Amino acid sequence: MKSTLLSSRVSRRILLSTLAVLPVLSVPLLTVPVQAQSATPAAALPSWNDGAAKQSILNFVAAVTREGSPNFVSPSERIATFDNDGTLWVEHPMYTQLAFVLDRVKAMAPLHPEWNGNQPFKAALEGDMTTLAESGEHGLLELGMATHAGMTTEEFQKIVTDWLATARHPRFKRPYPDLAYQPMIELLAYLRANGFKTFIVSGGGVEFMRPWTEQTYGVPPEQIVGSSIKTKFQMRDGRPELFRLPEVNFVDDGGGKPVGINEYVGRRPIAAFGNSDGDLEMLQWTTMAGGARLGLIVHHTDAEREYAYDRDTPFGRLDKALDAAALNKWVVVDMKNDWKRIFAFEGVR
Amino acid sequence: MKSTLLSSRVSRRILLSTLAVLPVLSVPLLTVPVQAQSATPAAALPSWNDGAAKQSILNFVAAVTREGSPNFVSPSERIATFDNDGTLWVEHPMYTQLAFVLDRVKAMAPLHPEWNGNQPFKAALEGDMTTLAESGEHGLLELGMATHAGMTTEEFQKIVTDWLATARHPRFKRPYPDLAYQPMIELLAYLRANGFKTFIVSGGGVEFMRPWTEQTYGVPPEQIVGSSIKTKFQMRDGRPELFRLPEVNFVDDGGGKPVGINEYVGRRPIAAFGNSDGDLEMLQWTTMAGGARLGLIVHHTDAEREYAYDRDTPFGRLDKALDAAALNKWVVVDMKNDWKRIFAFEGVR
Repeated sequence: MKSTLLSSRVSRRILLSTLAVLPVLSVPLLTVPVQAQSATPAAALPSWNDGAAKQSILNFVAAVTREGSPNFVSPSERIATFDNDGTLWVEHPMYTQLAFVLDRVKAMAPLHPEWNGNQPFKAALEGDMTTLAESGEHGLLELGMATHAGMTTEEFQKIVTDWLATARHPRFKRPYPDLAYQPMIELLAYLRANGFKTFIVSGGGVEFMRPWTEQTYGVPPEQIVGSSIKTKFQMRDGRPELFRLPEVNFVDDGGGKPVGINEYVGRRPIAAFGNSDGDLEMLQWTTMAGGARLGLIVHHTDAEREYAYDRDTPFGRLDKALDAAALNKWVVVDMKNDWKRIFAFEGVR
Repeated sequence: MKSTLLSSRVSRRILLSTLAVLPVLSVPLLTVPVQAQSATPAAALPSWNDGAAKQSILNFVAAVTREGSPNFVSPSERIATFDNDGTLWVEHPMYTQLAFVLDRVKAMAPLHPEWNGNQPFKAALEGDMTTLAESGEHGLLELGMATHAGMTTEEFQKIVTDWLATARHPRFKRPYPDLAYQPMIELLAYLRANGFKTFIVSGGGVEFMRPWTEQTYGVPPEQIVGSSIKTKFQMRDGRPELFRLPEVNFVDDGGGKPVGINEYVGRRPIAAFGNSDGDLEMLQWTTMAGGARLGLIVHHTDAEREYAYDRDTPFGRLDKALDAAALNKWVVVDMKNDWKRIFAFEGVR
């Protein structure tokens, strides 16, 4: 599955940025329920083992929420931003949105006889990842646009919703929203219970996320920042619609994450959560500002229950950001040892 | 003050879009306090005269909030979007942001001897609006970029904040935030008291608004959508910053408003409020969707207390949208007769 193309940072940016859909409404899906979470530390984060990572989170929240504390932060400024792929849900063996693209190419192929024998469509249809990778950025962009543009925002929302209802992860054989990390769902809820507003800031397409993030993470559509393609307002048969165009609008990855936070949120976060080099600049922007700040990296160390990877991986490469974590005192979560369970469907060890 | 250039729709788009700043924090300013508002109709909207406009608002809110009503809308879907210039505050004799540009050119001129004798700077420095208008879109763009780019987001936020603290409206001799419409402030609060989330969706620069909108309207930075220029993340002297570039990012006007709502909010509103043709598409997108929807246009009919204008005006032209209001049953507010007072500092008639 690994390839030189898919492992490059640029291809991630292009891939994710071009797969953008902007649905308008959130729709209930098969998902892990968001559990109500106590604001008291004793009951907080039940799927986290006691240890340095959990304690750092509890200490940070205590410091910024205790009135009179020198590090007190007013509720309106308690902004927390979370990466999605690899931070809130599984990103291996490939980004979920790439699985969506490949499935969509197959589903659309009967209406596109011109794809037969033509790359990169042929490779996508045959599941030939090596050839797909060799098609380069241009190839991925072409697949992204073919599957994400050319319909209204409402039509695309339905496509995503329908796909998620039946798609299954190849290893876990479960709907993708089931593969959200239970400890992170608890962390999101714990922060909200302590007055934080939680945002997702993902390299993935904002329109690919909005249909399911509220149900899965408790994060509403208006608090999702992601990559996007352009849309155009038009009247058709006397009704207004937004039509999705095959043109990149915004790439929310790397240095684009602080740019996106500033543009879409308009406040500087005091806590940020990521798992890869694509989150480095968001963590820098958040934590290098004076005052109590929390930077946290999810380190994939559990090949048995999930996956183990960091410096050499096509999806979610963690290299520079791992070095920066030591330098900047960001919390590095060891999934194997810090999490009692990874998924809601798992028993607690 | 009126001119062919300034009256063109395109120049409005260029002007507003290029004056974009994206400050990160909100800062208290001299402003009209946001009053707590009862959710009960009897006490609601005290600065509104009884009449068809007020009754339409009360009826709509009752319909969408009454459980069991066929038009009931769940709180998470109660999204209301407001234009700013001419809808929430005064836009005559020129957009406040244009006054800011002209003041900034004057303040910056000593550091820019190359501006002497060069248009459009010469005209801006001399207050020669006719020549300024003749400089065309390119001239306005040049002024916008000269005053809005070339600094960090935090520096620009301070520039806006400092300017607002001392700038005065030429007719009312008051700080601009005092010129927010008291009936609209009450309407914002009334909707929020009934479970709505209120957003501003303005052609003006999002960075020009965020420093003062929370204090003035009760709308936090993360609920402001507006025009913007591009920013770039960079490390300088070991500290992260966002640097403002002289390049248009997004123009939030006309058909751009529904595009912006979809991109930044991710839900379709059920109520929208505007005053000009730049709001037409937002009102169409909001109201032409089935179910109980509220479209409302503020019609400037009170030359004595504020201004009277509609079809022939450089700022806030209301022409197509006024025709569309009749067609689509949007509420048209007659400022002179529907509002007891326009500003908080006024006595009630």
